[in-house]
Amino acid sequence: MSATTETSNLDLAAYTAATADQAQRASRILALATGGQKDEWLARSAELIRCRAGEILAANEQDIARAPEFGLTSAAVDRLRLDEDRLEGIASAVEEIIMLPNPVGEVIGNNIRPSGLEVLKVRVPLGVVFFIYESRPNVTVDAAALCVKSGNAVILRGGKEAFHSNQAFHAVLQEGLTDTGLPPDAVQLVSTTDRAAVGHFLKLHEQISVTIPRGGKTLIQRVAAEATMPVIKHYDGNCHVYVDAAADLEMALQIAVNSKCQRPGVCNAAESLLVHRDIAESFLPRLATAFAERGVQMRCCTRSAELMPGSQSATDEDYATEFLDLIIAIKVVDDLQSAVEHIERYGSRHTDAIVTNDRNAARRFCAGVDSSAVIVNASTRYNDGGEFGLGAEIGISTDKFHARGPCGLQELTSYKYVVNGDGQIRE
Amino acid sequence: MSATTETSNLDLAAYTAATADQAQRASRILALATGGQKDEWLARSAELIRCRAGEILAANEQDIARAPEFGLTSAAVDRLRLDEDRLEGIASAVEEIIMLPNPVGEVIGNNIRPSGLEVLKVRVPLGVVFFIYESRPNVTVDAAALCVKSGNAVILRGGKEAFHSNQAFHAVLQEGLTDTGLPPDAVQLVSTTDRAAVGHFLKLHEQISVTIPRGGKTLIQRVAAEATMPVIKHYDGNCHVYVDAAADLEMALQIAVNSKCQRPGVCNAAESLLVHRDIAESFLPRLATAFAERGVQMRCCTRSAELMPGSQSATDEDYATEFLDLIIAIKVVDDLQSAVEHIERYGSRHTDAIVTNDRNAARRFCAGVDSSAVIVNASTRYNDGGEFGLGAEIGISTDKFHARGPCGLQELTSYKYVVNGDGQIRE
Repeated sequence: MSATTETSNLDLAAYTAATADQAQRASRILALATGGQKDEWLARSAELIRCRAGEILAANEQDIARAPEFGLTSAAVDRLRLDEDRLEGIASAVEEIIMLPNPVGEVIGNNIRPSGLEVLKVRVPLGVVFFIYESRPNVTVDAAALCVKSGNAVILRGGKEAFHSNQAFHAVLQEGLTDTGLPPDAVQLVSTTDRAAVGHFLKLHEQISVTIPRGGKTLIQRVAAEATMPVIKHYDGNCHVYVDAAADLEMALQIAVNSKCQRPGVCNAAESLLVHRDIAESFLPRLATAFAERGVQMRCCTRSAELMPGSQSATDEDYATEFLDLIIAIKVVDDLQSAVEHIERYGSRHTDAIVTNDRNAARRFCAGVDSSAVIVNASTRYNDGGEFGLGAEIGISTDKFHARGPCGLQELTSYKYVVNGDGQIRE
Repeated sequence: MSATTETSNLDLAAYTAATADQAQRASRILALATGGQKDEWLARSAELIRCRAGEILAANEQDIARAPEFGLTSAAVDRLRLDEDRLEGIASAVEEIIMLPNPVGEVIGNNIRPSGLEVLKVRVPLGVVFFIYESRPNVTVDAAALCVKSGNAVILRGGKEAFHSNQAFHAVLQEGLTDTGLPPDAVQLVSTTDRAAVGHFLKLHEQISVTIPRGGKTLIQRVAAEATMPVIKHYDGNCHVYVDAAADLEMALQIAVNSKCQRPGVCNAAESLLVHRDIAESFLPRLATAFAERGVQMRCCTRSAELMPGSQSATDEDYATEFLDLIIAIKVVDDLQSAVEHIERYGSRHTDAIVTNDRNAARRFCAGVDSSAVIVNASTRYNDGGEFGLGAEIGISTDKFHARGPCGLQELTSYKYVVNGDGQIRE
């Protein structure tokens, strides 16, 4: 290792340690902030995003200009691009978080013991959140808003593609903190794009309470392997729609098409369709037409292939794949139990839907499928913080530990016991 | 590495993988069991513990006979020893868990969206719990009862000191599972005392949802470092009692003595006492007498030393130490804020108490101290699953992530979203 690299490593170690220390100090102050103070910051931030539109858009122009260097696809450039409308959307999203109740201090359990001791379970912030994410700069604002409203300090580590846009948003968010008397270090943006900085932060479990990586599977695997603190992970969405024997076939058609086609590149889009054998003959030919019209490639089992003109045959691998594209794997199953077992075997425990008018079938499916969301008679696309009423989300957890599914304000909290007595001693 | 060791490693790998697979299969069945089935198993287990008292006590005799081999202290031998009374206590504890509500299926959130979509947050089991613990054989029964009632399969890894007792309890618990139609693999006991087995289990994150180590700090650190799945940790209890200026001094005396002396060797015993300067002169001499009568060694700051005859002077290290003995570190502080800062610096975020009749002081202390339990006007000894009304506990978490403080049935669960629609599609 050269002397230069060593020096640079030493600097990164000092920089990340100082950042994490500042975040921890800010988190202690923020934990005691009232809901009113935090909402005032949210309001001021929304206002500043509107006032500083010129500066933010100019910074964004710099990122757009550099996009070819990073080999961004035109879709990625589009996601990166800001304009007046998108800025207004970002400011409004911040204002929506004002409307949500302050989670900190909420009494979530309450037990008066025989001794008269009052045992309260009270929601408290986690502390410091290290958030690693890619591309879209609105995520910077959403994440900061959720973390601060839930009483946490946040260290933001955005993608290099959005570096200037993130800096512009960060300046505005910190100005808002200063204006409203909250510690500016409550929202810090990592000022280096050196990937080694992430490794340093992942060692700081004394200061950082949780790391949330949001991006590709490789990033999440790296973070999960290196982190010395808890990680909220967001892996694959290999989502299923199961059309039961007792389904309304017109509803099933709408739900299958919406789940697959409305936005095929996202984690809650359907990747596989399972059909009960009793309705395969009446349903699959209609579905084949609808999918063909939308350019969906169908990969079918032997039984479904016969009923779906233009389909290819599916491999075992296809059933395990998150295509994130206009491709769907299709299989005829003998009964609901076979559908549940197929999902257990191939699914990723993200989002799975059943279409049925049979109450018992719905109950059995919901109990049997171990996914973050099980959906009856609606599109898989609904597994989303906004759609579930959480306001924004900092990620969708595919873990069962701490938080599962969309993570909003409550999922960024822990609790403490507050015990009120009048002199109780034991024994 | 010798060929023998390699073969033994291969066997352990196969054994642990098979055990974890069996646990996972059992957990899927158990997740769907009704509360009635699980309670029936609890009742049958309590009954079998009573019927098989002879066999259990004989097995326990074998452990007691081998205790000198393991160099157990007489206190440890006493904790290990079972008799008719203790067996009755263990059976009754199981029956108390029957009285607690079934956590699985509980609706803990409920949001009807503008689209008419009904979003329910429903409690579900975690899956498979790997529980590593030491000495006392009653823990085997408590842990199995909590895990199964919360719908989880458990792999029990008890200490070698209690090997035969644990096997006897395990036989009874599995017989109960068979008798009541639940999968016997829901409760498995690791049949080897080879420590390498733990390392193998800690790699199996596909099968094991969470590892809970309960024992010495070295064990917990090893498990936390090696585990590839989430760990619920239980580190130090460096607990404080702060006697505020507005304290009832008689109450403060009772609470200080109880917190320190009632059972000095446990995690929720007090290790440090902080006293507001305004009442130091009237309070500390009385406390010195009470502590001296009970043989408590007092390690004091300069200001408190003058007021406490027979005390020694405290080092900085003393304030950071979990003595687990009849020793207490004592310090006079200038105000409540100094007490909070002392606890922040030296404490372990376990249990901290304030004695005060000043409502604002109590509020500031509870908000400012970041511990699993903050207690007003009662002994620190109350931070305990039984005392908090959780029934038994599988451990006390010093983490803020997933669960904090005593872990009972609810803390062994996650949740899923169950979404009910009538054909909703997005956009």
